[in-house]
Amino acid sequence: MTQTAPQDRAAFEARLRAIGDARYHDKHPFHRRLHSGGCSPDEVRAWVINRYYYQSRIPMKDAAFMSRVSDPALRRAWRKRIEDHDGTDAREGGIARWLRLAQAVGLDPDYVASERGVLPATRFAVDAYVRFVRDMPLLDAVASSLTELFAPKIHAERIEGLLRHYDFADDAALSYFRKRLTEAPEDVAFGLAWVLDHADTREKQDAAAAALEFKTDVLWAQLDALWSAYVEPARIPPGAWRPGEGLLERAA
Amino acid sequence: MTQTAPQDRAAFEARLRAIGDARYHDKHPFHRRLHSGGCSPDEVRAWVINRYYYQSRIPMKDAAFMSRVSDPALRRAWRKRIEDHDGTDAREGGIARWLRLAQAVGLDPDYVASERGVLPATRFAVDAYVRFVRDMPLLDAVASSLTELFAPKIHAERIEGLLRHYDFADDAALSYFRKRLTEAPEDVAFGLAWVLDHADTREKQDAAAAALEFKTDVLWAQLDALWSAYVEPARIPPGAWRPGEGLLERAA
Repeated sequence: MTQTAPQDRAAFEARLRAIGDARYHDKHPFHRRLHSGGCSPDEVRAWVINRYYYQSRIPMKDAAFMSRVSDPALRRAWRKRIEDHDGTDAREGGIARWLRLAQAVGLDPDYVASERGVLPATRFAVDAYVRFVRDMPLLDAVASSLTELFAPKIHAERIEGLLRHYDFADDAALSYFRKRLTEAPEDVAFGLAWVLDHADTREKQDAAAAALEFKTDVLWAQLDALWSAYVEPARIPPGAWRPGEGLLERAA
Repeated sequence: MTQTAPQDRAAFEARLRAIGDARYHDKHPFHRRLHSGGCSPDEVRAWVINRYYYQSRIPMKDAAFMSRVSDPALRRAWRKRIEDHDGTDAREGGIARWLRLAQAVGLDPDYVASERGVLPATRFAVDAYVRFVRDMPLLDAVASSLTELFAPKIHAERIEGLLRHYDFADDAALSYFRKRLTEAPEDVAFGLAWVLDHADTREKQDAAAAALEFKTDVLWAQLDALWSAYVEPARIPPGAWRPGEGLLERAA
């Protein structure tokens, strides 16, 4: 069988970046609706509740990854991601910041943290991501994290759009996104270099690209589920959050 | 801590059946649309393509279950399910029959069997089911199969509705459903008795009920994804089947 030669480093990087151009969830209509002020308060709440589930699983995903890495240097480099989300004695983590956003949109943070009301389709997609990272080759696992390449742009658009269009939006409420603007580029520079170094055959490059596509599917499916359940005509599945549930007293 | 007493057998069975009344996917608007003739040919095709993925994973799910069962009698009783789907030397299995339905609606069976074009959300939901059966206690795994309790009604409605409303529908095309009318009740009588026998504490009854709810979520999420992608206004996610792809020559 003929072996196809690997793409050179620049061409392979360009191929990975093109996946973001074609499939990253900043192209999903829900994000346009959110950033342009088109979402109702309940649509924003549904997004906050469901996206919380994704946030909450990221450190579990990173722990699953580290549980398979025998190189202490790689584990050390990766550990920061868990600290960024879970926090340290000295600084608050991303999950706590996300719950401040929940509070700002009138949701009881305890309700959001309970994960009740999360759409089953959100769970299925997010759990698929955690399991992918737990089960697949390390290269695929790292490559699936590279959607962070495309994240700073969406975070910047989100800060700008939410501040302009929604009363709840202020620096405290949006601190999660502001913080990710500096955290994500550090993580992804490491991850991208690691993938470019380790994808040294065409087969591995193809696997890494497929892993990144898989991850864009995970993100896209969450917004499809959100739209299907909560944007008119809403078809909320049995057991999922219904407007009016889980509100802070003042908002109820 | 006070232990809540288990429900008696009849009350527990009624509780399980009530889950079907509240959450089984025969209540989803896609099924009403399908059985009443409201689906376009492409909507029927999208359903056949995506539901194939579910069918294809059922014997893998059953093998995952059997891989954890140390009792030869239980394995023997369960093995029939794999034979029903995969077939034997002497008789055709459910997957082959599903591909005949694919052909009847104008799809290339090889395209359908390739699993290309399956919605990511379908994969996430179905894969979650396979993993649930692989990872959870055996009682939960058996309980999750009890949606078959509710299946004969939906298969009967489907045969009746498809025959009345769609040109493609004939006995050969619908043989999958006709066959399940006799297969499913046998399986589920065994599974239900097993769950009623083994859920001998309130905690286990609660877990079994939660497992059955989880399975209704798996089925419901597939129809939500189908509606979101293919019913107007269609929002087909990147990479999924687009009308016109995978057709038989005569239908193209």
